[in-house]
Amino acid sequence: MNSFQFLDYLGVAVFAISGALVASRKEFDLIGFALLATLAGIGGGTTRDLLIGRPVFWVNEQGYLAVCLIVALAIYFYSPFIGSRYRLVLWADAIGLAAYGALGADIALKAGVDPLVAVVMGMMTATFGGIARDLIAGEPPVALRHEIHVTASLLSAAAFVAFTLAGVPPLIAFPIAALAGFGLRAGAILRGWSLPRYRPRPGRET
Amino acid sequence: MNSFQFLDYLGVAVFAISGALVASRKEFDLIGFALLATLAGIGGGTTRDLLIGRPVFWVNEQGYLAVCLIVALAIYFYSPFIGSRYRLVLWADAIGLAAYGALGADIALKAGVDPLVAVVMGMMTATFGGIARDLIAGEPPVALRHEIHVTASLLSAAAFVAFTLAGVPPLIAFPIAALAGFGLRAGAILRGWSLPRYRPRPGRET
Amino acid sequence: MNSFQFLDYLGVAVFAISGALVASRKEFDLIGFALLATLAGIGGGTTRDLLIGRPVFWVNEQGYLAVCLIVALAIYFYSPFIGSRYRLVLWADAIGLAAYGALGADIALKAGVDPLVAVVMGMMTATFGGIARDLIAGEPPVALRHEIHVTASLLSAAAFVAFTLAGVPPLIAFPIAALAGFGLRAGAILRGWSLPRYRPRPGRET
Repeated sequence: MNSFQFLDYLGVAVFAISGALVASRKEFDLIGFALLATLAGIGGGTTRDLLIGRPVFWVNEQGYLAVCLIVALAIYFYSPFIGSRYRLVLWADAIGLAAYGALGADIALKAGVDPLVAVVMGMMTATFGGIARDLIAGEPPVALRHEIHVTASLLSAAAFVAFTLAGVPPLIAFPIAALAGFGLRAGAILRGWSLPRYRPRPGRET
Repeated sequence: MNSFQFLDYLGVAVFAISGALVASRKEFDLIGFALLATLAGIGGGTTRDLLIGRPVFWVNEQGYLAVCLIVALAIYFYSPFIGSRYRLVLWADAIGLAAYGALGADIALKAGVDPLVAVVMGMMTATFGGIARDLIAGEPPVALRHEIHVTASLLSAAAFVAFTLAGVPPLIAFPIAALAGFGLRAGAILRGWSLPRYRPRPGRET
Repeated sequence: MNSFQFLDYLGVAVFAISGALVASRKEFDLIGFALLATLAGIGGGTTRDLLIGRPVFWVNEQGYLAVCLIVALAIYFYSPFIGSRYRLVLWADAIGLAAYGALGADIALKAGVDPLVAVVMGMMTATFGGIARDLIAGEPPVALRHEIHVTASLLSAAAFVAFTLAGVPPLIAFPIAALAGFGLRAGAILRGWSLPRYRPRPGRET
């Protein structure tokens, strides 16, 4: 397992944790934990692989599914003993978001897509697992709340694509891009940074 | 048409019935009946085929779509004359669930995936049509309610994979696996069997 | 760019407008505008391409994504100055719906699928972007409300397939099929045409 593959497994685990914690907050049974952990953990990469026409990454390597199921089991039995679960997952999610924006863009570039498409693929890899998780659990998708969530994944993906086009080698481009995305998301968590919402004129029809 | 293909059509019809009955309970128009019957009928197999990279099963054989549309029409015109619709569909759904868990796993194994992946593919074939149906209809997914729904499809798929790995021929493995899944689901319907729900500690933050 | 490709871009733009206007009514931030415009703009064609096994149309031609993002930006900044946004989008959507029903069926027929499958692919191309948009935004899918929405796309797709099977050349079949679908939808908007809803017997159990 090389370092990029290690990051890939780390990203899957981190997102699986977010799914299992949503299941815990919704008081689902063990199957619901496994379903949400798996959807959140591998949903983004699955979307990316289907769209660019690659074999879906977890279908030929069952380790990814195994990680999601282990995470679901662990959270099911141990989460009652963890305080402030939501806070922990926000930070884990921020790491996954930043890493997956760049990793997803890297995989898309290697598949030969255009730069703008690679940025969108990075964003999808980092966010679509969470969108699927929220839809299935009946919660409003976090990607559409005010926080700088999708934006951080876009920054990470766009920075990686820009560096790569400029000839910067991946081992340098990756940490810088991921740190930029992580820093933006950390600011949003700690300081409440947000994008301006659309403001309608008062009293108008919708 | 061999016996496995007959089972395949039967599964599509049974799930299409569940979709049309949800449309009936929601008082949709005829198009809504057709849409929900088709989503429920072919959604699970479509997900499986996309993920393992097979041609989608109904795209090159329009009989599957025709079955969904005929079911939608029939339920639209005749369901007012059926008593206790929901009870009937629970049993039809249980048969489909058990059969499709094993059938989906069989198709995935033949495509060469790992055993754990084949079990998940069987579960998806048996449940994702219903999840899509519930999301579109705006109902909470039945797969996430307490009943032993997903679990029965997992049992059917896992039993089939285990038998196949042990060298048991499909014509023996299939009925045993499907019966095991069906028996578990029947127990849940008749006796209210359920998995333990996650219990949070009282008074804690979410 | 030939005339069919021009229509294709026009369809993407028109559906992207509908997505951005939903974001505006929901008061999302700029990222939410971009996400909904893109989902609505390319969602239907993406579904079609995945199902029939073609390369997804926007992955190798980034102009489609660019159109969605430009539409999102424009609506974000200028929609406060437009009166009766919803009325405008209904008409734009009707044009897109009618054109995409026939265009989607054309692409599916060229990929070699059966006629009934081609009609369903045309309908999906014309409607699934809107379904995804509504699910993500948490609104009841417009495709399942009473209006003749899905039906107009089916008419457009079915007319195109029927003409093509009868040997009518595409340049004649396309405008007639699209006009038929548009006329049906226009009648639904102007006169409130609708399909009969399912009527349950009073007092019965659901």
